[in-house]
Amino acid sequence: MVTMKVVVQISEREKVQQSIRSVINLVNELKDELEEVEVVFHQSAIFATTDRELLKPLYRDKIKVVACKNSLIAQNIKEEALAEGIKIVNSGVAEIVRKQKEGWIYLRL
Amino acid sequence: MVTMKVVVQISEREKVQQSIRSVINLVNELKDELEEVEVVFHQSAIFATTDRELLKPLYRDKIKVVACKNSLIAQNIKEEALAEGIKIVNSGVAEIVRKQKEGWIYLRL
Amino acid sequence: MVTMKVVVQISEREKVQQSIRSVINLVNELKDELEEVEVVFHQSAIFATTDRELLKPLYRDKIKVVACKNSLIAQNIKEEALAEGIKIVNSGVAEIVRKQKEGWIYLRL
Repeated sequence: MVTMKVVVQISEREKVQQSIRSVINLVNELKDELEEVEVVFHQSAIFATTDRELLKPLYRDKIKVVACKNSLIAQNIKEEALAEGIKIVNSGVAEIVRKQKEGWIYLRL
Repeated sequence: MVTMKVVVQISEREKVQQSIRSVINLVNELKDELEEVEVVFHQSAIFATTDRELLKPLYRDKIKVVACKNSLIAQNIKEEALAEGIKIVNSGVAEIVRKQKEGWIYLRL
Repeated sequence: MVTMKVVVQISEREKVQQSIRSVINLVNELKDELEEVEVVFHQSAIFATTDRELLKPLYRDKIKVVACKNSLIAQNIKEEALAEGIKIVNSGVAEIVRKQKEGWIYLRL
């Protein structure tokens, strides 16, 4: 079976909840076709990375959550405030571009 | 001549009209370079799939319109309400990801 | 070293400033991994192409700014009003699709 890795971009604060639902729909539909999803929060959506309750549906197998450090700084969020298990990258957009270069499929929510 | 298949994502209700114009501009510009476009409506943009008048510019050669079933359910839209000729998929985001895996080019409007 | 070309789409007027910051963050992070970035302004974001002050951070090595002619016409902007050094294409969305076909990586801001 062909499997896929998907890098998801979530940018807007007001779209975070809907976007998390879309990620879950994606995982539920692709099942074994999916190898891994990395969900990158940046820009105004970065606030979500401090909210464990909001992120709860993403704490499951095959999903990794990533926070953009540039956005954390811009929004004055301390790294200690992040929910557990979140990976920090210097630049969310660079992460998205590099993952594609490695063959990951891009989804911009 | 190299030809392309393009999968288009339309997510926001308030961007539907502008996005449909962009799809038409794409088709008009690419002409024979274009093999097929699939336009996937999901999230709040799903309402467009019930509005034949709004979709009218998309009823032409090489364009296929797709509705996300998850979004139909979330918005309480019955499948019978859909305009004619629309294909339903379980998950719009999974459709977008799978098409890319098959070599389609991605455009997020 | 593997180098990358990236085509960036900026569509919404209200997101122009934030998006320009993201492009600069991308360039600063990727450094030598980056060969070239093309930033395509279209839809309501097209107004930015007339504002040299706003675009200033993009006037640097490896970044090219592109304006969509369809959007210029739709917004009644004369080509003479564009800031210097901007490339005009018939269709911004067609440019984004063609660049991907040539192997450029896509980033939708």
